[in-house]
Amino acid sequence: MIPKQMRALALTEEGLRLRTDYPTPVPGPGEALVRVRLAGVCSTDLQLIAGYKGGYRGVLGHEFVGEVAAAPGAAEWLGRRVVGEINIGCGHCDLCRRGLGKHCRQRQSLGIIGRDGAFADYLTLPIANLHPVPNDLPDERAVFTEPLAAALEILEQVHITPESRVVQIGDGRLGLLIAQVLTATQCDLTVIGRNTEKLAILHEQGMTNTVLVGRGGGAQAAFDALSAHAADIAVDATGSPAGFAHARRLVRPQGTLILKSTFAGDLPDFDISSLVVDEITLVGSRCGPFAPALRMLQRRAVAVEPLIHARFSLDDAVEALDYAGRKGVLKVLIAP
Amino acid sequence: MIPKQMRALALTEEGLRLRTDYPTPVPGPGEALVRVRLAGVCSTDLQLIAGYKGGYRGVLGHEFVGEVAAAPGAAEWLGRRVVGEINIGCGHCDLCRRGLGKHCRQRQSLGIIGRDGAFADYLTLPIANLHPVPNDLPDERAVFTEPLAAALEILEQVHITPESRVVQIGDGRLGLLIAQVLTATQCDLTVIGRNTEKLAILHEQGMTNTVLVGRGGGAQAAFDALSAHAADIAVDATGSPAGFAHARRLVRPQGTLILKSTFAGDLPDFDISSLVVDEITLVGSRCGPFAPALRMLQRRAVAVEPLIHARFSLDDAVEALDYAGRKGVLKVLIAP
Repeated sequence: MIPKQMRALALTEEGLRLRTDYPTPVPGPGEALVRVRLAGVCSTDLQLIAGYKGGYRGVLGHEFVGEVAAAPGAAEWLGRRVVGEINIGCGHCDLCRRGLGKHCRQRQSLGIIGRDGAFADYLTLPIANLHPVPNDLPDERAVFTEPLAAALEILEQVHITPESRVVQIGDGRLGLLIAQVLTATQCDLTVIGRNTEKLAILHEQGMTNTVLVGRGGGAQAAFDALSAHAADIAVDATGSPAGFAHARRLVRPQGTLILKSTFAGDLPDFDISSLVVDEITLVGSRCGPFAPALRMLQRRAVAVEPLIHARFSLDDAVEALDYAGRKGVLKVLIAP
Repeated sequence: MIPKQMRALALTEEGLRLRTDYPTPVPGPGEALVRVRLAGVCSTDLQLIAGYKGGYRGVLGHEFVGEVAAAPGAAEWLGRRVVGEINIGCGHCDLCRRGLGKHCRQRQSLGIIGRDGAFADYLTLPIANLHPVPNDLPDERAVFTEPLAAALEILEQVHITPESRVVQIGDGRLGLLIAQVLTATQCDLTVIGRNTEKLAILHEQGMTNTVLVGRGGGAQAAFDALSAHAADIAVDATGSPAGFAHARRLVRPQGTLILKSTFAGDLPDFDISSLVVDEITLVGSRCGPFAPALRMLQRRAVAVEPLIHARFSLDDAVEALDYAGRKGVLKVLIAP
């Protein structure tokens, strides 16, 4: 039996609250009720908490693996282990009709815009958003499907070839997945990061071309050295204006600059005319395709276990989010 | 005989000056001396004049057709009618070695950076930069090779297909060439402009899908109507922050925004994170390929005669530049 109330980590007018009496969501037409088995904390969750005044209200969390607990009219899904795409378009606007439902202007995004998320006992999603998880793919790997798909989106958007010189800036949660995805193209990849332990994870995967930069003058010298070998493609995976500025400097004329994260605030010194003079292509990149992410996880073509830094019970979800925000912490998982 | 001094329109510490005693340039190794037959005024010339404090010093002008007057060691070029690519790389840096000479960090650009330009009796360029002009292509058409090449650069960078919905903002000198180049792709093109006469030139070429916007509320209403049919590709050919902002609004998620002109000043309200959320590709576009531009001009696939608004003698070059800066004026030609 499905309880009427459940546990949920909600962003409220009073801030972040673990509720034990949150109404269990009811699936609408074409939707499934999913019992969450495992969820992951993403930097976006932390940004939503930081900017909660005037922002999202509701249950956080959009990275999950779960089990279908109810699927009215689609009984074949009952009991299946699933992951789910997070964007829900209206289905009938001009963008949805053009296959751009993930960019629908009226879209909901699980745990981000207008739909309660995965840090809870249950969530609902359209059945069209669900992907069955292969039996040999454990929850601890399957929970990385959503961020890995976001990393793979780069390859959907930009043709990266074995001869491409690629520089990635950022060695965070998403950055370590992006680096592995980029490596799969056999390109000449350099990853620039600030954290010895995080870069060591890439070294363990055979990626030796990493650059550790400290803060201050040492970083500047490292960037100066790199800029002499201008990259064909630069990826900013830092989510900071400084990271973007560095990526801009490192990309060659007629090269491609990929923005893989949003950041709050202005770019005070951004010279957009320089993009014309240098004929730079700037590509914004967000959510990506689930099917190849599942394939990559299933055949163990990506290491995700070293990224798991902690596992919390949903009862301790507030602590989990606090821990995830600490310096150097990678993926934090929350299990109901 | 080549005179030791010549006429030249120079940007000096004192501003714009027509000199009659300017030293005739001497071709270096691998270079040719070109006698200018006809030159065209570009908005870039006007920008250089407007921003001359702290900027370029030397002879203005980079659109020209001329005749080779001297070519030491390359006599086969003597007397040939030519147009010339304007960027001159150092030839041995990493960018030049990678075929990116037009983006060489030490580059010269004719009449723009470090090399005297075409509003003069003579100029010099490397022979490698020259393209012979076919006999049946008159000077008045050949002089459009450089700006038409810049328009064609868009097609080098972005794959525009017959089904593409394209919106172009701007109906200026370059804009009217861009519109004709875009039309050649058979795409669904809408051109937004502020000038009835300029848009009429496009109508004469069979392009009826134009939108005339005034300043103020009428423009806003027109843009609102268009934004409901989000463009796959939006081209900003205005050279103004307002034009860029409109183009940004009109392009659909996952669409491409092409910046075809530089502009001075900041973009006060530019939200770069929105490029990530909407997965926009932003493409900066500058100089382009001469060979297809010459082909297009030769087979009369582009109308340039209606763009010619005035023709001045080099003796009246100061007046020519002044006239070119007036509202609504398109191409001004300068003949020595």
